[in-house]
Amino acid sequence: SVNPDLASERQTASFSVEKLTALLDGGTEQTRIRRAVVEAIESDPVFSRENQYFQTQNERYEAAVRKAVHLQTKMHEMGWTENGPEYKYIYRALSGDVAFLLHRVFMRSISVLGSDKQIAKWIPLATQHKLIGSYAQTELGHVCYLQGLETTAVFDTATQEFILNTPKISAMKWWPGDMGRSATHTVVFAQLYIHGKCYGIHPFIVQIRSLQDHSLCPGVIAGDIGPKMNFEHTDNGYLLLKNVRIPRENMLSKFCEVRPDGTYVRQGSQQINYFTMTTVRISLISDEVLTPLMKACTIAVRYSVVRRQSKLKPGEQEAKILDYQTQQEKLLPQLAAAYAFHFINDYLQELFNRGYREIQRKNFDMLPELHALSSGFKAVITQHCTAGVEICLRACGGHGYSLLSGLPSLYTKILASCIYEGENTILLLQTARFLIKCFMAANAGQPVPPSVTYLAAVKHGKCPAKNKLDFLSPDIYTEAYQHVAVRLTSSTAAKLQDLIQSGVKKHDAWNQCTVQLVQAAKAHCHYIAVKNFAETVEKLETKAGIQKIMKHLCDLFALHGIFSNTGAFLHDGYTSAAQMDMVTASYLDLLAIIRKDAVPLVDAFDFTDKSLNSALGSYDGQVYQRLYEWAQKSPTNQMSPAYERYLKPLLHNTLSKL
Amino acid sequence: SVNPDLASERQTASFSVEKLTALLDGGTEQTRIRRAVVEAIESDPVFSRENQYFQTQNERYEAAVRKAVHLQTKMHEMGWTENGPEYKYIYRALSGDVAFLLHRVFMRSISVLGSDKQIAKWIPLATQHKLIGSYAQTELGHVCYLQGLETTAVFDTATQEFILNTPKISAMKWWPGDMGRSATHTVVFAQLYIHGKCYGIHPFIVQIRSLQDHSLCPGVIAGDIGPKMNFEHTDNGYLLLKNVRIPRENMLSKFCEVRPDGTYVRQGSQQINYFTMTTVRISLISDEVLTPLMKACTIAVRYSVVRRQSKLKPGEQEAKILDYQTQQEKLLPQLAAAYAFHFINDYLQELFNRGYREIQRKNFDMLPELHALSSGFKAVITQHCTAGVEICLRACGGHGYSLLSGLPSLYTKILASCIYEGENTILLLQTARFLIKCFMAANAGQPVPPSVTYLAAVKHGKCPAKNKLDFLSPDIYTEAYQHVAVRLTSSTAAKLQDLIQSGVKKHDAWNQCTVQLVQAAKAHCHYIAVKNFAETVEKLETKAGIQKIMKHLCDLFALHGIFSNTGAFLHDGYTSAAQMDMVTASYLDLLAIIRKDAVPLVDAFDFTDKSLNSALGSYDGQVYQRLYEWAQKSPTNQMSPAYERYLKPLLHNTLSKL
Repeated sequence: SVNPDLASERQTASFSVEKLTALLDGGTEQTRIRRAVVEAIESDPVFSRENQYFQTQNERYEAAVRKAVHLQTKMHEMGWTENGPEYKYIYRALSGDVAFLLHRVFMRSISVLGSDKQIAKWIPLATQHKLIGSYAQTELGHVCYLQGLETTAVFDTATQEFILNTPKISAMKWWPGDMGRSATHTVVFAQLYIHGKCYGIHPFIVQIRSLQDHSLCPGVIAGDIGPKMNFEHTDNGYLLLKNVRIPRENMLSKFCEVRPDGTYVRQGSQQINYFTMTTVRISLISDEVLTPLMKACTIAVRYSVVRRQSKLKPGEQEAKILDYQTQQEKLLPQLAAAYAFHFINDYLQELFNRGYREIQRKNFDMLPELHALSSGFKAVITQHCTAGVEICLRACGGHGYSLLSGLPSLYTKILASCIYEGENTILLLQTARFLIKCFMAANAGQPVPPSVTYLAAVKHGKCPAKNKLDFLSPDIYTEAYQHVAVRLTSSTAAKLQDLIQSGVKKHDAWNQCTVQLVQAAKAHCHYIAVKNFAETVEKLETKAGIQKIMKHLCDLFALHGIFSNTGAFLHDGYTSAAQMDMVTASYLDLLAIIRKDAVPLVDAFDFTDKSLNSALGSYDGQVYQRLYEWAQKSPTNQMSPAYERYLKPLLHNTLSKL
Repeated sequence: SVNPDLASERQTASFSVEKLTALLDGGTEQTRIRRAVVEAIESDPVFSRENQYFQTQNERYEAAVRKAVHLQTKMHEMGWTENGPEYKYIYRALSGDVAFLLHRVFMRSISVLGSDKQIAKWIPLATQHKLIGSYAQTELGHVCYLQGLETTAVFDTATQEFILNTPKISAMKWWPGDMGRSATHTVVFAQLYIHGKCYGIHPFIVQIRSLQDHSLCPGVIAGDIGPKMNFEHTDNGYLLLKNVRIPRENMLSKFCEVRPDGTYVRQGSQQINYFTMTTVRISLISDEVLTPLMKACTIAVRYSVVRRQSKLKPGEQEAKILDYQTQQEKLLPQLAAAYAFHFINDYLQELFNRGYREIQRKNFDMLPELHALSSGFKAVITQHCTAGVEICLRACGGHGYSLLSGLPSLYTKILASCIYEGENTILLLQTARFLIKCFMAANAGQPVPPSVTYLAAVKHGKCPAKNKLDFLSPDIYTEAYQHVAVRLTSSTAAKLQDLIQSGVKKHDAWNQCTVQLVQAAKAHCHYIAVKNFAETVEKLETKAGIQKIMKHLCDLFALHGIFSNTGAFLHDGYTSAAQMDMVTASYLDLLAIIRKDAVPLVDAFDFTDKSLNSALGSYDGQVYQRLYEWAQKSPTNQMSPAYERYLKPLLHNTLSKL
């Protein structure tokens, strides 16, 4: 039975939840397929996550391996294939709690970087799991700056082998998933040396464990890097190589080859590789970043209509905590952001598909823009969503702090997304570099890519809003965002030029502007996200209340951004103090409006109870019963040796009855 | 041997690190005592935290109990007493990783709420650990709103007993520390009923476990609430009571008594109790909030001078990451905040000692101000420091995400401080209520407490700064903070009055202003923190470079606050856009200045390697070696059954040699 406080919230939905779910999925057929996958996975006990919060890192790893192996059987049984429509829903249905994810990266890197001969040899072996692959790029002392990697691969013409070494402790490979305990093979990135000359970073296939008994190969030292904030199920590993010899054929050689005599040959274009790195940043947004935020919103919103705290009105029942303005101000902007980023993700996916088609036609013109967008949005979305999940956790008070709420693990997992696949600050500076370059070009009358043409059209006007309702006009707020993005880019470009003209060296000048460059890059992405949300809303069908509620969320997303960054909008007087008061008024009004639909808005994300795995967030809202039931299952409720060892002797002389 | 990149940072310190440590400790004698305690604790293997990051919740609990029991012996051996000068350093030296902390709260509540007879009976038993106490206030469905608690205690005149019940699942006691597995007794807060009439919440001593065999007493259901984000060492518990009978003498009766015939007698003043609750909020700041931030700063700053990443200048070695402006902008404001809050903590402690003396003289005049200050600063400091620790963690990239860095556990622990002892939003609204009341009073010409007299003196001037150096004048920035605090309070007071005058009911009007009230409360605390830092710096001795470096940190703390909240300062034109650019310039200049002393500034916190327990933050900066050594000890490097069970069958048919 559904908690009546939660049930009542569903009766007054202003829109069709089922229609909104279909919109998020991209159509009713997609919803049907997704639900079928979820049903098949969740009804299979091998994939259960029921005891997850009670398990040790070792238990989590073993479960993940078991699931990965079982998934092969399951896919066969269900008729799912890697190219089928079900495939993309499997990972989401498993909540990513499965091993051998790096095995897939191993395969992709061979497909992309390997010669036809190498592909023909390795891909079938990997597909049939006759080996388990990993991907060893990051080193203990080096992450994203590839030129700094220290592992070496020296070509020995006498034996036609490469000799691999990690010459210093900082050169040790560190972090690769599946490598700590599972992998038999890995792709190692190392500095290539031939006849004493360094040719830079290249990829090599290296066997690290025996296929007979899984023991480490000669010269290989590998293991698990130990406990982390999350990803207990993954055996992130370390790898030391001491004179490990591999045949010449093991250097992946689609683009570069070492001939038997040691001649180095570069062939083809590597630009497609850079493109692959940028698409990874976009592809992780949906499963790794948006899903956790949507789950956190679902948990926190449902809990906030079940939990009652203090009296809002004298003489009445204690109020649902979602009726407090401060609680609305915590949660509803996160909900709006989840929708905003869902739509920008659609936009980016579409843009990258187009980019891919162009690149296949050998047209690389879109690359700089795609790189800037993928870097900026990866950083902005991961940052925003991580902060959002933390807000949801804290908004649930003590119960949010219990692992049983599901919120701590969502938080500790999404936090990693700010760090991996490019640290966020470094990525934002990549975007900023592109913005500055385009700003200069635009001002010199040169053509610039579509997403930055607005930089050329600097307008020095004022915001035309006359009353608080004007701030519900997408034109008004989109233009305000655009104005801020242009101002921050242009003022930082000016500072940069001033510094250089005053004699500061270019790299020092750049460093002295980086705090402001980061601001400019964020403003650029924020502007595009707001613009895209507004344009998306305009195109929605007006039926079933969908467009209306999405318009409210779009307004909230935009006004929350202004309310939280008032200085950026007030700075040059584009927005006046009186207008800012209007923004505040409209923003606070919106909270009360959207609050009414808060539960239907999270219901539309369509998470099952098993996928939420939360004592606070289940569909029926039976929070307290579930917390109590789950707590009883905790290993901390087994008899502890602490009593016999410490407590009994301590209490020894106590009176028999006080 | 110290990593040379770290060693070089110490050679150029602009001040005496030892003198700064003494300043933080409150004198060289205090430093000596603290170090002696730390040395005694850390040299004792029972107190070791060496394997902490590898332990399960059960292992952590057992270790904490062992430490708590051993601590009794240790104190006796060392001649430390609860009233001695060493006592306050013990908890810090143990990093709080010890059981029976609630036993102390149990004792304090009896001392404060019990009659002389009750104190005479229970305190000696507790002191000698003839029982283990806990403190059961919070319920599954109720936290800080005491009137909402649902547990009942019905007086039975026939047997002269109270009958205790948890009538609903939401009434179950939930969270009390030491209660899940250890406690034999607890103080239960319950609604007192006599002859069917409710007299509100009262405290009762209830035995929950047998002193013979530790089994649960009849009618008692209790256990551990399971895994949390941190505090694995504490057995936070649940408690269900079914017709549990306790003698009439077990109601703590200093202020209220139930006579044998059921007559209810209230005696004395309870105001001292409220004062106790407010002092707890202040007392937790030092150990639970400042220490974690200082540790996080120490770890992140030391790591940031050891880690090198990319080249700042072409042709040079890769740069220390602390040389990047963006890294400075992450870490140095946290360092400044740690010092700012250390000094405000001194101020609050001093104020509360004075308050305590007044209250003992039956003068309760200071209570409202003390309540407002303790609520506001508890919220502001916990929030700021939690965000600071998270920034430090993220600033260390992937290595910060490893538990071995020490940063994740600092973060997950400090996060709880935003929730316990009063949820932060609720506390800020308490402060805001006081501010609004005082603002009204001040404007009506009535006297107000010292910390808010500034609210009466509303000045409508402009910031007089003419160039960026003017923003290094404490008068200039303190006044700007004061202006913002007054503006936010007065504008919210005006909105509140407008709403009420337009017919909105008082409680609805209040709710509609809460987002802005929270802002006003934060601005008030921020202003006081800045003012106090500036005043503290002024009084410091100018010798040994201490005053100079503290002045820089004070400026940074103040300007960072403006830079991060530009809208608040720009809003009514008190600060102009041109002045805001000066703030930015001065702020960024300060980063480069303080960066030079960053390592000496964290060294002054004087944490031992054992207390940091971090592979990244040790004094010698041997980061990579330590990560590698520690990882090898992880239980995830033991043989896993996953190979025999899953991997071997999977790899079964593989070629013997690829």
